[in-house]
Amino acid sequence: MTYETLDWSVDGDGVATLTLDRPDQLNAFDLTMAGELEQVFRTDAWDDDVRAVVVTGAGRAFCAGMDLSADGNVFGLDESVRPTVADFRAAYDEAPYADGVRDTGGKVTLAIHALPKPVIAAINGPAVGIGATMTLAMDLRLASTKARIGFVFGRLGIVPEAASSWFLPRIVGLQQALEWVYSADILDAETALAGRLVRSLHEPDDLVPAAQELARSFVVGRSASALGLAKRLVYRNAAAADPLEAHLSDSLAMYWQSIGDGKEGVAAFLGKRAPEFTGRASELPEIY
Amino acid sequence: MTYETLDWSVDGDGVATLTLDRPDQLNAFDLTMAGELEQVFRTDAWDDDVRAVVVTGAGRAFCAGMDLSADGNVFGLDESVRPTVADFRAAYDEAPYADGVRDTGGKVTLAIHALPKPVIAAINGPAVGIGATMTLAMDLRLASTKARIGFVFGRLGIVPEAASSWFLPRIVGLQQALEWVYSADILDAETALAGRLVRSLHEPDDLVPAAQELARSFVVGRSASALGLAKRLVYRNAAAADPLEAHLSDSLAMYWQSIGDGKEGVAAFLGKRAPEFTGRASELPEIY
Amino acid sequence: MTYETLDWSVDGDGVATLTLDRPDQLNAFDLTMAGELEQVFRTDAWDDDVRAVVVTGAGRAFCAGMDLSADGNVFGLDESVRPTVADFRAAYDEAPYADGVRDTGGKVTLAIHALPKPVIAAINGPAVGIGATMTLAMDLRLASTKARIGFVFGRLGIVPEAASSWFLPRIVGLQQALEWVYSADILDAETALAGRLVRSLHEPDDLVPAAQELARSFVVGRSASALGLAKRLVYRNAAAADPLEAHLSDSLAMYWQSIGDGKEGVAAFLGKRAPEFTGRASELPEIY
Repeated sequence: MTYETLDWSVDGDGVATLTLDRPDQLNAFDLTMAGELEQVFRTDAWDDDVRAVVVTGAGRAFCAGMDLSADGNVFGLDESVRPTVADFRAAYDEAPYADGVRDTGGKVTLAIHALPKPVIAAINGPAVGIGATMTLAMDLRLASTKARIGFVFGRLGIVPEAASSWFLPRIVGLQQALEWVYSADILDAETALAGRLVRSLHEPDDLVPAAQELARSFVVGRSASALGLAKRLVYRNAAAADPLEAHLSDSLAMYWQSIGDGKEGVAAFLGKRAPEFTGRASELPEIY
Repeated sequence: MTYETLDWSVDGDGVATLTLDRPDQLNAFDLTMAGELEQVFRTDAWDDDVRAVVVTGAGRAFCAGMDLSADGNVFGLDESVRPTVADFRAAYDEAPYADGVRDTGGKVTLAIHALPKPVIAAINGPAVGIGATMTLAMDLRLASTKARIGFVFGRLGIVPEAASSWFLPRIVGLQQALEWVYSADILDAETALAGRLVRSLHEPDDLVPAAQELARSFVVGRSASALGLAKRLVYRNAAAADPLEAHLSDSLAMYWQSIGDGKEGVAAFLGKRAPEFTGRASELPEIY
Repeated sequence: MTYETLDWSVDGDGVATLTLDRPDQLNAFDLTMAGELEQVFRTDAWDDDVRAVVVTGAGRAFCAGMDLSADGNVFGLDESVRPTVADFRAAYDEAPYADGVRDTGGKVTLAIHALPKPVIAAINGPAVGIGATMTLAMDLRLASTKARIGFVFGRLGIVPEAASSWFLPRIVGLQQALEWVYSADILDAETALAGRLVRSLHEPDDLVPAAQELARSFVVGRSASALGLAKRLVYRNAAAADPLEAHLSDSLAMYWQSIGDGKEGVAAFLGKRAPEFTGRASELPEIY
């Protein structure tokens, strides 16, 4: 696939770098970019040769948010629909709900979330609106000292989207999440670090290499199926009602790994040799 | 409305200040105060002229907890009911369960929680028992350097109430929540800050103005419906099972805002003028 | 009961100390230890004379993880079962699922979790794999400056188990949980403290006494039923969908305590005397 708004490359260790690539528009998110982001996370990123994904922005911004320079209906909504809860839930993936009501940013973050591989945001500059919320569905956020992050929806009379209200309180806690949503402020890098939104700060030139190196450390010599199942376990059980739910799903995950890559892992450990894992993220066993 | 145990005032920006007003009893919480708190959060606070609420205490305390000086049955319970889980759940809002079993503090915190507007605690002094747990249902907690906060229920042979076991671990994490509940200690202001229970510390005289200023920054020039929906999204999706749940609700919230105050917000942004929002917190669209 | 792999003792205040006791194997977890841990938390620890449990390791390690020196099938799995989600969920407590599929570590952590009393980990040295995840089901983690903690599953081609994906994100947040699971690194004590995995660090000789003293402070002079219900409330409502759920359960807990140990607690407080509580953790009222 080639993309109009994105650059996609994969190195020899399986670490993909996805670059939001509209630098003259500060990588503003338009409907083309939305469709391409959903596409890349539903197709290219699932290739078994891809082990992890680093996401960054070309030029001085990460993503300046929804491209408001578009004429007219920037959110791509069908104003004639007037959805009710019941109708929308019953048919959210069908027309006119699928395109006329469903939040565009959320379609992207659900695609990121569904990928059973580590995804790391390398926030190189301003990340505003959907530019901020899309990073919440990524597993870790590294930031440049020049990063600026803003959940600015309140300033425009709209609400945080892209499933951000699921992710944000689980990353930074309820009080911090509410403050940032209410204030709609632009946070500097140090504030984002202090609030535990980003994992670490880096000099601008060091950011993407650091994110790629971290991704590499997660995947080289590791089982792709173990990583994929671990990601699913953490996200699902972070919201599960009871530890028994976690026990049921991790029993299944452990069972299937233990008679697969886990058997090789233990044998390699006892044999003091490097393991040769064969599990694939594209073929995970059902555990839910 | 006038209240016996409370003082309620609203400034020109729509920032209400609710003062627990039994200073000679250190604002101890009795059944009259419980009823009045539930009332104020179910009526006055819903007025569309009210945009946010700051809660503080008159005199040197925030709230010294349940007023144990009352003769006899301080919790207002009907000892003859002997509720079972099934019977109580089936009829918790009916007599005798509504008044004889349902936790009084919880009726207050559910009313605070239901208000689709920012609520900020300005903890000016001791906040103990229900005086501590009522602040957990408020969105942010600012504290005086003289604040003292205690989840002291264990010392009296009772349990944390007012739905505090839902809020506390989501604010401070599971380990810190358990320690404070088990220890039943009185925490000083610095400990509460270090444990992320309170957002910030202030000199005593600066506390209430700081809380009011923060509230003002959240609401002046902002859409009341966007704020109200954002509050609901964060709380509901902080406990939702799956990001898809968040996507469905925030799609609806975003849709309704985008054809209302959001359209005005984008137009004002592009026109480099202040927006004129008309959405009302009292008339939010259904999103769940 | 006497145990082959454990040491169990109870002091005069009801503080039990459970020592993983295979020091020559660095307290590695084998199927015997698994069975004995489940047993001690299902039987001895429920004795009403036991008020809290401190768990530590004999010698220089806490627990070096699954004992991989065992011949053959270290996980105790039945490779012929090939469970489906539906079949396993329908019959997870029956043969062949109960022993051939269910994760051994999870059976232990569910037993720890079910105990309605404070449980404190005193991590005296390396705690790796199940040695790390078993501590997550304990309420608080104190660590020696020599502690080393590792969620190393990824290095062996397996996944985090023992319901750890339920506990870990609720203790340290989603981003930190994902990083540690992906990295599979061994964390030093300072890193574990900074990430809020452990509550406090202690000099090696001070660790177990500090944990015992903390346990003592939670239970001496306190109501055993109030503590037990409080533990259940915090864990259940940390995952409940809505504050109303918490309100229903804590109303029932408060009701039953208030006409029991709570009545004595208030009377003692007003009479300026020590309370004499009689509630038992082995006989808690139903609140869910």
